[in-house]
Amino acid sequence: MRLRLDLAYDGTAFSGWSRQPGLRTVQGELEAALATVVRGASDDPAPQLTVAGRTDAGVHATGQVAHLDLTAAQWSALQRAHRGRARVGEEAGHSPEGALVRRINGIAGAAADVIVHSAAVAPPGFDARFSPLWRRYEYRLADLHAHRDPRRRSHTLWLPSAVDGEAMDAAARALVGLHDFAAFCRPREGATTIRTLLDYSWMRDAEGVLIAVVRADAFCHSMVRALVGATVAVGLGRITVDELLAIRDGAARTNDFPVMGAKGLTLAEVGYPDDAELGARAAQTRAKRELTPRPA
Amino acid sequence: MRLRLDLAYDGTAFSGWSRQPGLRTVQGELEAALATVVRGASDDPAPQLTVAGRTDAGVHATGQVAHLDLTAAQWSALQRAHRGRARVGEEAGHSPEGALVRRINGIAGAAADVIVHSAAVAPPGFDARFSPLWRRYEYRLADLHAHRDPRRRSHTLWLPSAVDGEAMDAAARALVGLHDFAAFCRPREGATTIRTLLDYSWMRDAEGVLIAVVRADAFCHSMVRALVGATVAVGLGRITVDELLAIRDGAARTNDFPVMGAKGLTLAEVGYPDDAELGARAAQTRAKRELTPRPA
Repeated sequence: MRLRLDLAYDGTAFSGWSRQPGLRTVQGELEAALATVVRGASDDPAPQLTVAGRTDAGVHATGQVAHLDLTAAQWSALQRAHRGRARVGEEAGHSPEGALVRRINGIAGAAADVIVHSAAVAPPGFDARFSPLWRRYEYRLADLHAHRDPRRRSHTLWLPSAVDGEAMDAAARALVGLHDFAAFCRPREGATTIRTLLDYSWMRDAEGVLIAVVRADAFCHSMVRALVGATVAVGLGRITVDELLAIRDGAARTNDFPVMGAKGLTLAEVGYPDDAELGARAAQTRAKRELTPRPA
Repeated sequence: MRLRLDLAYDGTAFSGWSRQPGLRTVQGELEAALATVVRGASDDPAPQLTVAGRTDAGVHATGQVAHLDLTAAQWSALQRAHRGRARVGEEAGHSPEGALVRRINGIAGAAADVIVHSAAVAPPGFDARFSPLWRRYEYRLADLHAHRDPRRRSHTLWLPSAVDGEAMDAAARALVGLHDFAAFCRPREGATTIRTLLDYSWMRDAEGVLIAVVRADAFCHSMVRALVGATVAVGLGRITVDELLAIRDGAARTNDFPVMGAKGLTLAEVGYPDDAELGARAAQTRAKRELTPRPA
């Protein structure tokens, strides 16, 4: 029985998504909560999470997706426990999945910096990591033209300079398409760096904060933050759009722009195909990534 | 020499605006920074701040306004120091007021939860507290229909219920006008509770978060949070709009609704008249408030 979880987190106090011994991570907190919820149901091992976007330390998510597999014994025990609680008035009106969400949030959500929005039985073939058609990230950057909002400082990079947002937008749009993005990827033996960048744009919101929307089939490690850094270099007048495209087509990592800070970055949405195509999409992605140990 | 400061803060880690011994407050932090900046310039006492909205503990501001008065000796010393630094390349391109902002933020802004956006020589007659025509507050409330964003938990109240946002909007609009708002004010001997509520509405944003806009000439203490609590009671089906209006016109504090939590509340904007009318407006407000020690 596979469940799909939709969830969100503020990454400030997490050492990223992936479980790491001795560190507070999103995966670690959620798997610990899951282990508590299924404890005693059976001798089956506690479920593990597979995620759409393995975000780095400090990166946030509003539309993260993960899946987990429950054994038949775990699923039956959850349903039994839920029926029992519903009978005494608790969890009435909730499905077993809805009750699971409440219990996970009750354990992992104490600091309110991670919240599971929903859990649902996944359609056949669904794989949170391999089924996506695309991932969409947003980046928030407040330069000296922006009205800085201290309430949103956890997820907005404050840049102590003024940048040309229109030049950044033009540079971003010039990068879109199917390319080898090796110049924007941390090198990794045997991994392909060819990606389809579907959307990349910059605009200022009502407060003058620069908002980037970046969407691709998948991203190599630190690619979004390198893409942001490259267009910021254009916005500061340090490189031209032509130089940026030459860097991209040179396909070698450069020092011409920085990888921008994690705090401005949020995984906003993951796009999946229609249910009937989930399995085929996962098989296709797996084949393409066989040489790619780290997909996101 | 009177300066107008425009500033913003996340109220989470402050015990409100007003200076209090032993507590971290916005006024306390900013006045300490100002004292450092003017120290040594003269024997004149350090400037104090007068503010448009004296926000409670936990309340935020994106559009707060304050003023301070510098003596001639302090103003001359600031200008001299600025000319000196500009000569060696620091603060070049800044006005003395711009340089003051940078220095205050350098001292008070270490935690980035308070930021001065600008300082400017105030027009004659300007008084941050008595000149405003109106104050506008916003309240963010995420009920069970909303997509909760952990990144914005510092300034959004999470309500563990589902509310009827349209009923809340209708109730809010019914309250607008010139009324005695005693039912929404913490009682205070000799203080008038008659206010003009200029705007009050509720809408859901793209994430389903309920946003209230509340604008009045002035607010008595805890009035915005009581107005929010009253419409939430309507949204929960606990009272009707007619009952709410009867409560308002009864003009006595009731227990029919709670004063909502501070964390959802932000002072968004303060409206001042044209420069020529600043002094007249301040005189008019002072006359009206002579019996009202606490205006906001």
